[in-house]
Amino acid sequence: MASKASILKGTRDFGPDEVQRREYIIDTIREVYLKYGYRPIETPAMEKLETLTGKYGDEGDQLLFKVLNNGDFLAKANAQHIEQRDSKAITSQIAKRGMRYDLTVPFARYVAMHQNDIAFPYKRYQIQNVWRGDRPQKGRYQEFVQCDADVVGSDSLMSEAEYVLIYDEVFSKLGLQVEIHLNNRKVLEGIAEHFGYRDRFVDLSVAIDKWDKIGRDKVQMELIGKGFDPHRIDEVLDLFEQSDWDKVRTLHGSELLQQGIAELDEVLSYIDSAALKQELVLDLRLARGLSYYTGCIFEVKAKEVEIGSISGGGRYDDLTSTFGLKGTSGVGISFGLARIYDVLTELDRFPSSALKSLDGLFLCMDEESLRWAFGLVTGLRQNGLRIDIYPEISKFKKLMKYADQRGVENVLIVGETERSSGTVVLRNMRSGEQESVKVAELQDRLFQKA
Amino acid sequence: MASKASILKGTRDFGPDEVQRREYIIDTIREVYLKYGYRPIETPAMEKLETLTGKYGDEGDQLLFKVLNNGDFLAKANAQHIEQRDSKAITSQIAKRGMRYDLTVPFARYVAMHQNDIAFPYKRYQIQNVWRGDRPQKGRYQEFVQCDADVVGSDSLMSEAEYVLIYDEVFSKLGLQVEIHLNNRKVLEGIAEHFGYRDRFVDLSVAIDKWDKIGRDKVQMELIGKGFDPHRIDEVLDLFEQSDWDKVRTLHGSELLQQGIAELDEVLSYIDSAALKQELVLDLRLARGLSYYTGCIFEVKAKEVEIGSISGGGRYDDLTSTFGLKGTSGVGISFGLARIYDVLTELDRFPSSALKSLDGLFLCMDEESLRWAFGLVTGLRQNGLRIDIYPEISKFKKLMKYADQRGVENVLIVGETERSSGTVVLRNMRSGEQESVKVAELQDRLFQKA
Repeated sequence: MASKASILKGTRDFGPDEVQRREYIIDTIREVYLKYGYRPIETPAMEKLETLTGKYGDEGDQLLFKVLNNGDFLAKANAQHIEQRDSKAITSQIAKRGMRYDLTVPFARYVAMHQNDIAFPYKRYQIQNVWRGDRPQKGRYQEFVQCDADVVGSDSLMSEAEYVLIYDEVFSKLGLQVEIHLNNRKVLEGIAEHFGYRDRFVDLSVAIDKWDKIGRDKVQMELIGKGFDPHRIDEVLDLFEQSDWDKVRTLHGSELLQQGIAELDEVLSYIDSAALKQELVLDLRLARGLSYYTGCIFEVKAKEVEIGSISGGGRYDDLTSTFGLKGTSGVGISFGLARIYDVLTELDRFPSSALKSLDGLFLCMDEESLRWAFGLVTGLRQNGLRIDIYPEISKFKKLMKYADQRGVENVLIVGETERSSGTVVLRNMRSGEQESVKVAELQDRLFQKA
Repeated sequence: MASKASILKGTRDFGPDEVQRREYIIDTIREVYLKYGYRPIETPAMEKLETLTGKYGDEGDQLLFKVLNNGDFLAKANAQHIEQRDSKAITSQIAKRGMRYDLTVPFARYVAMHQNDIAFPYKRYQIQNVWRGDRPQKGRYQEFVQCDADVVGSDSLMSEAEYVLIYDEVFSKLGLQVEIHLNNRKVLEGIAEHFGYRDRFVDLSVAIDKWDKIGRDKVQMELIGKGFDPHRIDEVLDLFEQSDWDKVRTLHGSELLQQGIAELDEVLSYIDSAALKQELVLDLRLARGLSYYTGCIFEVKAKEVEIGSISGGGRYDDLTSTFGLKGTSGVGISFGLARIYDVLTELDRFPSSALKSLDGLFLCMDEESLRWAFGLVTGLRQNGLRIDIYPEISKFKKLMKYADQRGVENVLIVGETERSSGTVVLRNMRSGEQESVKVAELQDRLFQKA
């Protein structure tokens, strides 16, 4: 029985142009990762549910997609839980598989599992889909690509410097102007400590992280609402508003703060700032939401489009300890493919070469021409050109409409006249101009245009 | 709490070498697809369960992975079904999502859904993962990549000819020797008809399909077991054993057979067999298991390794009618990535360039050298080389072990002597030879080797 063709909310199809433009971004990122010594790994879409559960907080546990066990899954479920309709308790009894929620936990699992085959410091990149059961809404999907790189097993701040250079190179190659924001969680925690708020550091940094979105006043209100002293917090926020690093350097009473500043200085010492193509910003208000960052943190912002952060990352401790491998601190970054795509689209900055479009499309006027042209097509393809041919005889109007729909620039028309004279008519679909071209010259002509 | 790092049975991790070798195969296929006018689409990993159910037979329905609804999924389940522990009936009540089982059904759904934006004949390729709950065993995984191309909306046999040429080009580029087998289901059905077995065509073709695996005698026994007349079936099998196409052409009483032969002749008329790099075999015993093929069918076999078919495809009718779009016949092929990978591995035929390995790895003897070398590293990377640097100071033995584990050929050693003379020591890890190279010459030297 025929059913209506439709897809799940929160999912989407990608047509040819979208796929190729996404591949253009991904290829650009991949090429730079490779130059910096990162190599790819791939992990399964499904992990043991127990590998994923408890790693992303309560909300994450709920948003994890769980895959139903095959066969008679209810047979093994606890009778009492079934009686009580206890969906939560039953989940792990009827679903032993969970879908990849991010690339970090699978990577930690990978490192712990393959630790004997890995040379540390270990650099890997991973570009794969992840799935999250977020409520579908504009611009938020339940399936999306992450483009991560991490290095684990070294404390060297050279890695942080490398990430600044990777951002610089990737976004320059993509033809975008960005600001690369850099900060250090130790500096933030040190400031909190200086003002006597070290035990309230998380609240403070969560609020500061929203500054650019909601402004100082609302940050202040949020903090007062959480019980911070209005006068003292005013002083703290003055510091963040001024973003005066010289002043920050003079704050005393926090070793952590001095350590954070020393780390930033060391990162900068590796980078010849004058040679950067993009702007590097020491951003005191950069806090990053995720609690597991412990050192330098990054965020990249597009300068030409208002869209929030388009990449981010930072240093963390003890990535793999939940899998029994202790002491592997690391640092990683991720490119936001969807947002970078949106920025390039809005600025109309995809190069035309991203769309690997046809170099030529043959249209034939009769059966004999179809056969004759197919020989030409085969030769041109073997010489590396992207060529197609409408495989039937049809009305000229229909053929031209097809050429138009395919969005091809060069149409090659073949009829009896052309066949007998060893030529084809080359028509430019944009200008409408057409001319007769000898078969022997076709390869060069199309290659030139291609 | 620390848990042991492990993965689900039937799934696997891919390390850097595997990922890059798989990408080499995929890139080769993709490049050829593009030259033949195919363009990529991508569909979601999860489809509505109703889109997938009933499309792959009863066994397929069981092997489909279903994704549990988020939230209190039991709340909406039928009370009686729960009482009866009726897993089968409950499935669609607690899981509305199914995971992609192949690329054909999602493609049919895509064509029906986007029919107004598509120019027919429509050529697409699709290279994505699929998931099946098969019992894990050696060489069989629950997640694997399919590499499909299809053209729908035309009956032209030029498409079949194109697929022969695509096979020819892809496998030649991969450096493999293959046989491209070609047959036509109408010929098989016509032979059945000639011998009065048209209503038993499925049984006959299923048995013939096993010929190469189990031999004539077992095929014969299977058919006799199914009630075929021993004498008459002997005559049928003689015909298949001889594979005498001249004899097949003389069989009368079946229009279908003549049509099938005419189709094969037309496909061959498009192909200049002399220009093929691979062997094209008209194979009367090629039947293909899948019942939906209706015209030409293909299979590719490696000549140098016994592994069964490494690619296949064929023409089908009415791909999209279950989604309400009638009359879109098409033809498609698929490359078996895993088997092609195995063949290339067994023959040791991956080019070394498939592994995008490092052009050089820097090892530094002191902090000052580390900083100095990082400047060199950055310059070399910006000039396009793949360079890495061990980011810490360590014992020379440990550094050399690391270089060894990274599998790098060119190691660049920097200490005080080198720094002060503007040189680095270039050591070839294979030969053990080393020499002093001026910094200004480094780029050329490494590029030469790369």
